Amino acid sequence: MRLVVIGGVAAGLSAAARARRIDNSLEIIVLEKGEVVSYGACGLPYYIEGQVGSVAQLIAYTPEYFQRDRNIQIRTRAEVAEIAHSRREIALVGGERIHYDKLVIATGARPDRADIEGADQPHVFTLTSIDESRRLKSFLATEKPQRAVVIGGGYIGLEAAEALRANGLSVTILTDGVHLLHREDQDLTDTLRKHLERCRVEVRTETKVRTIASDNVEGVPCDLVILATGLKPNTELAANARIEVGRTGAIRTDEHMETSVRGIYAAGDCAETKHLVTGTQAWIPLGTTANKMGRVAGSNAAGARDRFAGVVGTSIVRVCGMGVACTGLSVWQARREGFSPVKTIIHSRDRAGYFRSRPITVELVADRATRRLLGGVVLGDQGADGRINVIATALQNRMKVDDFEYLDLAYAPPYAPVWDPVLIAAQQLLKELD
Amino acid sequence: MRLVVIGGVAAGLSAAARARRIDNSLEIIVLEKGEVVSYGACGLPYYIEGQVGSVAQLIAYTPEYFQRDRNIQIRTRAEVAEIAHSRREIALVGGERIHYDKLVIATGARPDRADIEGADQPHVFTLTSIDESRRLKSFLATEKPQRAVVIGGGYIGLEAAEALRANGLSVTILTDGVHLLHREDQDLTDTLRKHLERCRVEVRTETKVRTIASDNVEGVPCDLVILATGLKPNTELAANARIEVGRTGAIRTDEHMETSVRGIYAAGDCAETKHLVTGTQAWIPLGTTANKMGRVAGSNAAGARDRFAGVVGTSIVRVCGMGVACTGLSVWQARREGFSPVKTIIHSRDRAGYFRSRPITVELVADRATRRLLGGVVLGDQGADGRINVIATALQNRMKVDDFEYLDLAYAPPYAPVWDPVLIAAQQLLKELD
Repeated sequence: MRLVVIGGVAAGLSAAARARRIDNSLEIIVLEKGEVVSYGACGLPYYIEGQVGSVAQLIAYTPEYFQRDRNIQIRTRAEVAEIAHSRREIALVGGERIHYDKLVIATGARPDRADIEGADQPHVFTLTSIDESRRLKSFLATEKPQRAVVIGGGYIGLEAAEALRANGLSVTILTDGVHLLHREDQDLTDTLRKHLERCRVEVRTETKVRTIASDNVEGVPCDLVILATGLKPNTELAANARIEVGRTGAIRTDEHMETSVRGIYAAGDCAETKHLVTGTQAWIPLGTTANKMGRVAGSNAAGARDRFAGVVGTSIVRVCGMGVACTGLSVWQARREGFSPVKTIIHSRDRAGYFRSRPITVELVADRATRRLLGGVVLGDQGADGRINVIATALQNRMKVDDFEYLDLAYAPPYAPVWDPVLIAAQQLLKELD
Repeated sequence: MRLVVIGGVAAGLSAAARARRIDNSLEIIVLEKGEVVSYGACGLPYYIEGQVGSVAQLIAYTPEYFQRDRNIQIRTRAEVAEIAHSRREIALVGGERIHYDKLVIATGARPDRADIEGADQPHVFTLTSIDESRRLKSFLATEKPQRAVVIGGGYIGLEAAEALRANGLSVTILTDGVHLLHREDQDLTDTLRKHLERCRVEVRTETKVRTIASDNVEGVPCDLVILATGLKPNTELAANARIEVGRTGAIRTDEHMETSVRGIYAAGDCAETKHLVTGTQAWIPLGTTANKMGRVAGSNAAGARDRFAGVVGTSIVRVCGMGVACTGLSVWQARREGFSPVKTIIHSRDRAGYFRSRPITVELVADRATRRLLGGVVLGDQGADGRINVIATALQNRMKVDDFEYLDLAYAPPYAPVWDPVLIAAQQLLKELD
């Protein structure tokens, strides 16, 4: 039995490693079109910022490690041209054909350049690959740019802005949407904008970029441009093999991460999963989800029976020191999904007042009809991560606000105020619901 | 209509404040036998340590504030001698009688001196009242003690040890039990003991103290002694009024915080609540729970209908810089409750390895038969609070380990590794369950 995995980053290698644990006799081949496998792309902004000293720190394992310690064959610079499922064969660019019994597609996503002209100039960068990050790092060192434009207000755009500010550049973020972080939440956008401006990052929303000039973008002067206009799932191989692509544009999968074709699994940034709040398919490309999907795909491809129920849309990003964490639905999303959302925002402290406490903001959204929690946002220099995870766990359990209100959360002065901010938010939300 | 509340600290004042919100016309009288109301007893160790500069910082509100802003009458030095429910009357020490329509008993708990001889010497202190803490603070300043013995290995004992170390004293903890933190968990006790010893706090378990001498305790030389031998619920008033006291020794309440006598509520450290993992009544005196119970008691006493489902036994304590967080049941407790517990411990990092990560330990306990999570422990300098709260939320929802394994928790390098430690623990626990 041979398992072939297309893609050697988060999802692909999780799948391969997990399959090996399940079945010691399976032949496992990972095909990676790039040169490097197993790197933490999420660390690239911190390599630019300086927190991570070298790209080597971001590479968890080498191909040699996988071969030697896991008996997994890794082939780099192996680009797949075609999946021929009727013959259970992969064709590589160059013509080589490789048979498989089970297949995991973990082709990831690529930057969506959004048809911007001038994106191929030497002062324009994405933050999605090691090569690009190295090129940016050396550009910063040799060209000493002063003014950067970041195109895109998603989490990579915000991380890029923070990293460039840490390098002393002035930064302007241009985004075509009304909102930041792709969350239709005006309060969140306003708070973020104010915070960014305090950190001397200018934000211009509703600014569609068509052309990058050599010294400006849409009139904003700059000598460095970061393209962070979002991602596009790499589904071409799958689509050409008549594997179903869902409405989200990513490869459709069931809770076993199996595609519409038996024996072919998909995982990571190229694949859909279920949104557990809405019950519908979603495409939310994130490293941690990619690892989970990969693990489940690998389990099942190797003959075990594992299940990935889905996600609730949790994310966190550090923006100039502040943790910005979201989960579930915003009011707008909730309304579109047919809920009757009610929202509340509270401002509190993350710890006992006398204990170096910092401000923290909690936003909760619930459904008026069912009183179910639908989503939340937590913003704070400390403790936003732990609190968003409490809300995420509540969402995963379809908790009502009434049951959430008195959750038994840990209290001691160095860690929380006697009423945790998420509980204060729940109290206030209940007033709106009654 | 008049509501009388006995006790002016956490539960009592939460009840009074909440009752006022529910019913603006209610007459509300709070009777407090001490001189000060509304103080954060949980902050006292940090006043000793020096983090909190003065006791005034721990006092949230004055009696004048309650009178003026909330129309709540606070009577300090008003000690209740008797509850005569047939006449709906309180008798104060001194003879005054006060009529009530609804009553909230929030009499708290007192240090359990465990019949230790010599506990009334001037170099012996508890850490449960402002007066005692002030006396200790001045003793530290004037007598400059060098060697302290802390009697008791619960959270107050550990906080006291940390506070005294911060003052430069050598510290020995003596506890009669086998375990620290009253959790029958040998791994936790061993880890804590090692950590304390690294911080130069000696720990002697299974050491029953009978006598405190002027210069030693059970042979350990010292010039300062902290009594932290646990608490006893103040139930005498209730018991004398034939209000039911439960098997735990605290006042029995239902989920509305009503006692066995209609119209009389109990809340805080004197009252029982339900343990949501075992389904049985429990007495776990903690400040945050006292506030919640008080709020619910106040709501219901004022005619609303609020419900406190119970607790899962969550707590956190900072021990010489390390967060030590517990929730739910240990293996021993679980076994006693009729479960067939399985436990796992993992050691991981709290963040991405390249991001100033610190070690973190996660312990999970589940039931073999139902695969339900039963409890957890998290130990770490960073992020123990957020992670114990995720486990607590899972317990409150009776989650199975299978559903916990792929929780959608927030990931970004400054906050978590790509596999959160609690999920790694769940993966390992599933191996033990299969």
